[in-house]
Amino acid sequence: MFPVNPVRKEVLGEKAYARVTDVLQKVEHAYILIEDVEQALEDCGKAGVKVASIFSGGFADAGAEGMKRQARLAGRARELGVRLLGPNSMGVIDVPSGLAVSVNAVLEMPTLPAGSTSIVSQSGTMLGTLLSRGAARGLGFAKLVSVGNEADVGVGELVELLAADAATRVIVLFLETVRDAARLGAAARAAHAAGKPIVAYKLGRSSLGEAAARSHTGALAGSDAALDAYFSDCGIVRVDMLETLLEITPLLRKPPNLKRPGKVAVVTTTGGGAATVVDRLGMRGVELSGPIMDLTMAGGAATYAAALEKALQSDCDAVLAAVGSSAQFHPEVAVEPIVRAKVGKPIVTFFTPQADRSLALAAAAGIAAFRTPEACADALAAFFAWRTPRVRPTGEIDIGTAQGFELFSQLGVPVAPWAMAQAPEFRHSIPYPVALKRPGEHKTEGGGVVLGVKDHHDLQKKAAALNAERVLIQKMESGLMEAIVGYRDDPVVGPVVMVGAGGVLAEVYRDTEVRMAPVSEEEAQEMIARVKGFAAIRGYRNLPRGDVRALAQAVAAVSRLALAKGRPVLEAEINPLLVKVDGVVALDALVARKGDA
Amino acid sequence: MFPVNPVRKEVLGEKAYARVTDVLQKVEHAYILIEDVEQALEDCGKAGVKVASIFSGGFADAGAEGMKRQARLAGRARELGVRLLGPNSMGVIDVPSGLAVSVNAVLEMPTLPAGSTSIVSQSGTMLGTLLSRGAARGLGFAKLVSVGNEADVGVGELVELLAADAATRVIVLFLETVRDAARLGAAARAAHAAGKPIVAYKLGRSSLGEAAARSHTGALAGSDAALDAYFSDCGIVRVDMLETLLEITPLLRKPPNLKRPGKVAVVTTTGGGAATVVDRLGMRGVELSGPIMDLTMAGGAATYAAALEKALQSDCDAVLAAVGSSAQFHPEVAVEPIVRAKVGKPIVTFFTPQADRSLALAAAAGIAAFRTPEACADALAAFFAWRTPRVRPTGEIDIGTAQGFELFSQLGVPVAPWAMAQAPEFRHSIPYPVALKRPGEHKTEGGGVVLGVKDHHDLQKKAAALNAERVLIQKMESGLMEAIVGYRDDPVVGPVVMVGAGGVLAEVYRDTEVRMAPVSEEEAQEMIARVKGFAAIRGYRNLPRGDVRALAQAVAAVSRLALAKGRPVLEAEINPLLVKVDGVVALDALVARKGDA
Repeated sequence: MFPVNPVRKEVLGEKAYARVTDVLQKVEHAYILIEDVEQALEDCGKAGVKVASIFSGGFADAGAEGMKRQARLAGRARELGVRLLGPNSMGVIDVPSGLAVSVNAVLEMPTLPAGSTSIVSQSGTMLGTLLSRGAARGLGFAKLVSVGNEADVGVGELVELLAADAATRVIVLFLETVRDAARLGAAARAAHAAGKPIVAYKLGRSSLGEAAARSHTGALAGSDAALDAYFSDCGIVRVDMLETLLEITPLLRKPPNLKRPGKVAVVTTTGGGAATVVDRLGMRGVELSGPIMDLTMAGGAATYAAALEKALQSDCDAVLAAVGSSAQFHPEVAVEPIVRAKVGKPIVTFFTPQADRSLALAAAAGIAAFRTPEACADALAAFFAWRTPRVRPTGEIDIGTAQGFELFSQLGVPVAPWAMAQAPEFRHSIPYPVALKRPGEHKTEGGGVVLGVKDHHDLQKKAAALNAERVLIQKMESGLMEAIVGYRDDPVVGPVVMVGAGGVLAEVYRDTEVRMAPVSEEEAQEMIARVKGFAAIRGYRNLPRGDVRALAQAVAAVSRLALAKGRPVLEAEINPLLVKVDGVVALDALVARKGDA
Repeated sequence: MFPVNPVRKEVLGEKAYARVTDVLQKVEHAYILIEDVEQALEDCGKAGVKVASIFSGGFADAGAEGMKRQARLAGRARELGVRLLGPNSMGVIDVPSGLAVSVNAVLEMPTLPAGSTSIVSQSGTMLGTLLSRGAARGLGFAKLVSVGNEADVGVGELVELLAADAATRVIVLFLETVRDAARLGAAARAAHAAGKPIVAYKLGRSSLGEAAARSHTGALAGSDAALDAYFSDCGIVRVDMLETLLEITPLLRKPPNLKRPGKVAVVTTTGGGAATVVDRLGMRGVELSGPIMDLTMAGGAATYAAALEKALQSDCDAVLAAVGSSAQFHPEVAVEPIVRAKVGKPIVTFFTPQADRSLALAAAAGIAAFRTPEACADALAAFFAWRTPRVRPTGEIDIGTAQGFELFSQLGVPVAPWAMAQAPEFRHSIPYPVALKRPGEHKTEGGGVVLGVKDHHDLQKKAAALNAERVLIQKMESGLMEAIVGYRDDPVVGPVVMVGAGGVLAEVYRDTEVRMAPVSEEEAQEMIARVKGFAAIRGYRNLPRGDVRALAQAVAAVSRLALAKGRPVLEAEINPLLVKVDGVVALDALVARKGDA
């Protein structure tokens, strides 16, 4: 390691060099901390430095001018053949080898714990946070990288590298945004192929948090629901709570790929303690495989071991082993039987008291142990939702210049018969009763839509009142329930398809399900099953059942916009799509192409 | 302390007595650990022991037989003049005086931290859990009581005592159920009057957790929404996460009584770290009072102190001071300025790294510090929702034997004009169109309700088809939206009133607001404002506005069932209550009196 400093001859007793070009040996990696990043980069180019990590800020983190400065810097680095990490990066730490190119204050720790978890973080501070919290628990780390603004090397490329890194077993991501969804998606698939699970914590669950994350990173705004869909699609486990990110790692071996709610068997030495986890599991839709085995004051290690064995052999997807006060001073009572259990199924443990030694015992044994009941439940729910990366339907379709109803008809979605009619006669061949719309109007509230026009006389009167030369005439349809089906080329993750219950109430409740597009009919059925409001057409309270299959076909059809040549569509929406006992029919449609005003 | 043991002469080197009656000195408090609780109690009676705490189980925790055994025991204790704590109690600990009548394993800790927080817990283990976790953080305790089955001394009475206890500043409750809501409610009001905040964690957020809590306590099942309403009514702060229960205590001084969302000012040395809290705050409806003051790498203590001062003087209800890596080894950078801040407004802190020393510094200074971003946000949201105990409307009304529409009319709720009509003529004076119902039928799905009957001929035909001697005729009404208004005498907390959006979708989404009954019209307006679905009548997307005031009047009217002499009504529901531009009207009603089959 060679200190480079233009004004000091010595740094911490080491000889300092004025410029990196003065160093006589070949420098592999430079860490730039000064304001004149551009000059330092030039020097790196001259000195043949392969990678420059940049701590300095004032780039994409600093508004429009900063963005331009960053683009210039990245361009120049390419010319010079220097790869960049940052700017705004806290650097790189490789724990097992003791390499630290970083300003992270966590390096003041007397020892850093080595392990096989590697972290890529968009927040430099959080890298230190995770490392220090893990160290206190006996959780060790391999490589830690703070990516900063990702002007060059990004999360996706690092995941590719970690997927191929023998020292890494699990990849942990702390994300504020996703800058290259395609590359990260491909890297996640490579990691899966290499047997390396990825777990992510991403800010932006609420618009407040999203804005906070963006304000100090200069990132794009995508939809959080789209990101959820994206992570699931790539086989990335998304956790809801910060500590879960670390605590879940031992649990991640391979995706359970469940198509039903996960089931947990519970063994505990404290009824109240187990209930704190079970209460949260219920909130997340997890089920119990049988009654809780409550061994409060019921004996020692042999009793606990026997109950644990019984739980492991039960019809469950994972075992929750909760331990009360004995976890603090008497690990031999219950913690040791857990640590020694033959792990056929996933085991997670929650220790109710302050139990640092027991947490370390579990960590050493590779068993997921949780400090809080909430993180424990979060981890189980995230684990059960974990699926193998999805193979998306492929192909290419040509949608030409079709708009609105024409486009959806072309995709294969049934559309209510319609025609354009011209003033003053407004002649058309749609059977009455019909609806009447001023072109471009979509909501009855606007006054440009008239429903239930009885006959031609009525039509002429009402069309004239609309004061339009041309009106859209559409057959009145009736059905059981309104749905909404949408497509969006999300700026962050790309094409997604959405289905939800229609109408004002459903809009207020945001009762929708989003997946990466395209989806198959079977996947669309899964989406529909997750929309609460569709209970009304799934046989709720003896109400008639709607044609869910036709709805799924419509969702799959709309999702195929993702296969359109050049992906010209920005957003498309059928609202409402009327679900009938037999079939579905689109009553209104909106399409926005990229480049539309 | 005198060991009592029928078979040993000595216990841990102390002389043991065969029976408590053998002890020559006056015994104040006995702790019974043996199976023959009944005999031990007789001895206590003879020996003039004032209080017997019972660790032994096999009472209400053990099914119907156990419940009977407990009733006998409690009865006998009353006769003997012995107060009981338990059965199934882990006992009592008074930390400042060093008194411990308990089997809790937490007592193996080298020292117990003294402080002014007292805990009453329905789970004995969780008492130790809270004590050991608090100790590791520098949070101290005064009195800790494990109430077990509450055969005699219960949570309510203990809160009364703690409200009057000079050593107690904050009262913490770990609850699995509420066994005497009236007494706890009165005690909570006494604690408020004494300036002592109460904070509760209660299991049963999900039905899974509720069942888990009940299975090992033999408690009654109430509705969690009703409990939420109850806690709010009594001025008890309810937290969502276990650690929040301890961590929030320094924050609780007096209720902010906000009638709008709480506003937080944020100062941080880590953008990502602050965003982890802010993201959750957004999910809980909390707002920011201004941009986040992000001081990442921006200097030392003076800069932080100045920003903190600015935040404290801003238009906010609380300040969130987040600290990154410096919290681990350099508390002088940001933690000390926080600890030294002149506290005019509530301050909460979140330290991102493992930072035990900083957490202890904050605890010593009486500043609420959080280990996780989620608990920090939970605490702020719970704090902002905290209100002074409510003074409920009082009085008594007489509802006689009225049922259904008659009862609601009598309460002052407008009801759609109706009449009973008799076969074969079905004569009535309600103007057409009308709805037709077979008595006792409430849903169109059942086939016993016919809507839109046009004229008397139509009526006779359709009434005959219903195959009933008497039918209910009701004027057809139209309006903007359906609401549901309900009343329930909850078995745990007593009378509650509920309002929600009507219809199948709203039912599926459980979009309802519950309060303790009765409520005033103004309180009903607050309830309505919290129901998402009513957005549709609050001027959403230019839709016409509904008569929210009339709806509030109807809610207040229904809530007055809580004032009915003898509280004869178990449940009552108007579904739907039609909300019109001008007024509301009940279209269907159900009333169940106590004792009805």
